[in-house]
Amino acid sequence: MRFPFERLVGFARDVLIAVDALPEHAEVTARRLLEADLRGRSGHGLIRIPQYVMRIEAGGIDLRPEISFVRETPVSALVDGDNGLGQVVMTLAAETAMAKAIESGMAWVGTVHSNHAGAAGVYTTMAARQGLIALYLAVASANVMPPWGGQERLLGTNPISIAIPAGEGGPYVLDIATTVTSHGTIKVLAQAGEQMPEGWVVDIEGNPILDPNRADEGYLVPIGGYKGSGLNIGLGLLAGVLNGAAFGEDVIDHRKVPGQAANTGQAMFVMRPDLFSDLDQFRAGMDHHLDVLRAAGPPGSVRLPGDVAAELEAERSAKGIPVGEVLLGQLRDLGGRLGLEDRLE
Amino acid sequence: MRFPFERLVGFARDVLIAVDALPEHAEVTARRLLEADLRGRSGHGLIRIPQYVMRIEAGGIDLRPEISFVRETPVSALVDGDNGLGQVVMTLAAETAMAKAIESGMAWVGTVHSNHAGAAGVYTTMAARQGLIALYLAVASANVMPPWGGQERLLGTNPISIAIPAGEGGPYVLDIATTVTSHGTIKVLAQAGEQMPEGWVVDIEGNPILDPNRADEGYLVPIGGYKGSGLNIGLGLLAGVLNGAAFGEDVIDHRKVPGQAANTGQAMFVMRPDLFSDLDQFRAGMDHHLDVLRAAGPPGSVRLPGDVAAELEAERSAKGIPVGEVLLGQLRDLGGRLGLEDRLE
Repeated sequence: MRFPFERLVGFARDVLIAVDALPEHAEVTARRLLEADLRGRSGHGLIRIPQYVMRIEAGGIDLRPEISFVRETPVSALVDGDNGLGQVVMTLAAETAMAKAIESGMAWVGTVHSNHAGAAGVYTTMAARQGLIALYLAVASANVMPPWGGQERLLGTNPISIAIPAGEGGPYVLDIATTVTSHGTIKVLAQAGEQMPEGWVVDIEGNPILDPNRADEGYLVPIGGYKGSGLNIGLGLLAGVLNGAAFGEDVIDHRKVPGQAANTGQAMFVMRPDLFSDLDQFRAGMDHHLDVLRAAGPPGSVRLPGDVAAELEAERSAKGIPVGEVLLGQLRDLGGRLGLEDRLE
Repeated sequence: MRFPFERLVGFARDVLIAVDALPEHAEVTARRLLEADLRGRSGHGLIRIPQYVMRIEAGGIDLRPEISFVRETPVSALVDGDNGLGQVVMTLAAETAMAKAIESGMAWVGTVHSNHAGAAGVYTTMAARQGLIALYLAVASANVMPPWGGQERLLGTNPISIAIPAGEGGPYVLDIATTVTSHGTIKVLAQAGEQMPEGWVVDIEGNPILDPNRADEGYLVPIGGYKGSGLNIGLGLLAGVLNGAAFGEDVIDHRKVPGQAANTGQAMFVMRPDLFSDLDQFRAGMDHHLDVLRAAGPPGSVRLPGDVAAELEAERSAKGIPVGEVLLGQLRDLGGRLGLEDRLE
């Protein structure tokens, strides 16, 4: 079943308000979640609402946070989220990074005491739409694998997003977990009743686990073996340790201990392309090279980072966002319990 | 056979001077190459000397370049290498990025009309040793694979390095190609007479190629499938298109057309960690978390990015750098031809 974007934003916002979020925080959180759904990142969209409500009701998220700038220079800031909703903290961080980059050329803004903030690409896309280059990195909200060669779960799916503006043919938006898959994607498969392919999750002996409902028993696999494991660690150090946020043994599984503060860390780097190039020339060069890459195989065979998301966004803006049966049932139950009956009929 | 670091630097420098490089350019190039060997990145070390000489003698590298700053702000610069030796151009770029970061908090320096500059980690390690965070990216010097889903070779092994300083237990230094392997590594195997493992190189139908001497017939494989391919593209856009350097169809194979200018592009980002954290606290946090990761399996089973390089550097500084028989023969022949007989006896 499909619903218009704004209707789902309104539902998510009102659910969050019903559990006592500030209206402006609920609005920002709802928009970031539905922007993920709009671009096909369903694992970081509406599907997270029941989990956020669970954490809020368990006291794991502070709904009246005093979000503050702990450190600040013309090119940097450290935002203390005071355990507020992750989307609210990260939106402030992203907007701060963009404003400082426009002023100073570039900026890096980190977060501490933040929470799960959804799809990485949602934030970098905000910057790319303003003609800015952006990089996003985060410590994921649960440990799912050991460092390469080890056995103890100390690393999450630590994502990276890179967005680069172009002319008509862009932007390029990479938005990946540094594991072969992520828990959001596994959750979508589980709700659809589908199996996972080999190479996503292994048990301690390295044998594949295919049932998405058993994914928690195994380890996720990093992309590219020791290389992806190393990249994952680097992102975690920069988004976590550098900011004083949780990393490694300090990361809690935010779903399993919903009442506990997560101290999630994220970082966003934003840079003006006109530091290096005439803007028209840069945009034309981007369009040209992206088109050459797209033509490197039979029509439709090469999809570049951001292409599918842009297509889905166009289609879903026009026809609505599809919501699967299982999730729809959960959301209707949740709505009913919170006095929001009939909102998703 | 092993040789002391300084003796090999002297040999490499004198070879380059013998083919008419400026003494100071020869010195910088030789040091960057041997620093790669010292840290075990043999694919980007001494093994490159015959290839550089070939390009120099074919007129593919300008030995009297007018290296200049095309654009510059307190946080950025675009260095035009004027087709000079890549190590010379990148060393200037790295030193500029470090100086600006110390002054302004962070800086991004790109290069255009540069050449192959060797191991990514050599440059980021320079910054980490000064207590700075560094990121390096480059367009590799030959196209070896299509974008994911395509068939035309338009992408290189585009490397990324991230270095993060620590206290006694660091630095963390990631230095990876975004392909499963790189031509440098394949070259080392070929000289050792060994086969490549499956998953490194495939033919157009996806069948593995195992003979390193046949690697050029096939495609390298990106790490993590579409994810690594997407990351590879992003690095290439930022190091190439943004700087006006070659990318995609404009990249030449610098070994196959040695007389042609390559217009290689690189970028280095440097940032001061004290923008976000008290330095002592940051270093202690890094040491702690790196140690926890190292203890995630039986002793010695977890090697973090930079660990092996640091060990090799200590060992090779003390005992000398091993040079394989094939390379030693090539270098002795080259030395003999250039009036540098008996330097590697």
